[in-house]
Amino acid sequence: MKWDEIDQQLCSVARALAVVGERWTLLIVRDAFKGTRRFDDFQRSLGVTRHRLAERLNKLVEHGVMTKVPYSERPRRFEYRLTRKGLALYPVLATLSDWGDQWMADGAPVPISYRHDRCGQISRPELQCSACGDPLRPEEITPVLGPQLNAYLDILHEKRLVIPDDSCLISEASAYYQSINLESHTDE
Amino acid sequence: MKWDEIDQQLCSVARALAVVGERWTLLIVRDAFKGTRRFDDFQRSLGVTRHRLAERLNKLVEHGVMTKVPYSERPRRFEYRLTRKGLALYPVLATLSDWGDQWMADGAPVPISYRHDRCGQISRPELQCSACGDPLRPEEITPVLGPQLNAYLDILHEKRLVIPDDSCLISEASAYYQSINLESHTDE
Repeated sequence: MKWDEIDQQLCSVARALAVVGERWTLLIVRDAFKGTRRFDDFQRSLGVTRHRLAERLNKLVEHGVMTKVPYSERPRRFEYRLTRKGLALYPVLATLSDWGDQWMADGAPVPISYRHDRCGQISRPELQCSACGDPLRPEEITPVLGPQLNAYLDILHEKRLVIPDDSCLISEASAYYQSINLESHTDE
Repeated sequence: MKWDEIDQQLCSVARALAVVGERWTLLIVRDAFKGTRRFDDFQRSLGVTRHRLAERLNKLVEHGVMTKVPYSERPRRFEYRLTRKGLALYPVLATLSDWGDQWMADGAPVPISYRHDRCGQISRPELQCSACGDPLRPEEITPVLGPQLNAYLDILHEKRLVIPDDSCLISEASAYYQSINLESHTDE
């Protein structure tokens, strides 16, 4: 698998990383959450080359994470704003930031902490179950295969083929459905 | 700023991405959560080159996210297991996966959903405040600068210098403290 093909995987982590898994991209989104909107401000904050920054911003716009809005007509200039899809990345940034605080600070005080305005206390993000509201622990979660992965398992059973382990099942099934897609496109 | 220097930033997102922000790395961690432990199994699942995979795994071991444990003496072979620091990445993967489900599936059914064993229902991860347990919404969060950023702000005030916006404050203060560190190392 090439990196450019990971959005074809039957895996939601891979599909997410196809958009936000490049160097700099999540730092651009972080800055956007802090209120940065203009190309030069992103550039000043990140110190990345203009070429690289433009490439990353364009990809975010192309995938609907940011939108490019004109703020001046003469000269014509644009700013970049998070869309609903971009704002929905907040939990990813909050949990990444919290992990950095807990595990990467080398005992130094955290650079920025966060106050929850509703309770007035310094807060860390924790996961809760959307159904019952209880804390979500990885050992209490069972994956349930969706229809595509189940259909692929049925094919393997039918042909009496070896059932791969979970991570290889995803990559094998993805390759299988991609090959079918290619065939059907060739037929058209 | 070069990518290799982002762990020097006074920003927990940047510090986290210094370890897990490369292409493939979070997919390796995802596979480890699914139970993959051996080099060849990671390679089969990801299809990445052996050189690239070894480089990524070594970096994860070096930063204490994974640990390399011998499972055979002759021939001597190792497997890779998540440490506590690695297991603590669960909320990042869960929120990334959920974002992929909600925003990258193009209307197709999700590849894998997750059942919360305690309540028996299909569950999505949501953020709650560690202090009060209420849902955490980005608009109800106020950043509180830590001692290093506050000390840098004091210096700017004292010298009557311009106060930069939030994201540039982080990069300016980081550059300032790095330069001080360099000086003190040169003095030694």
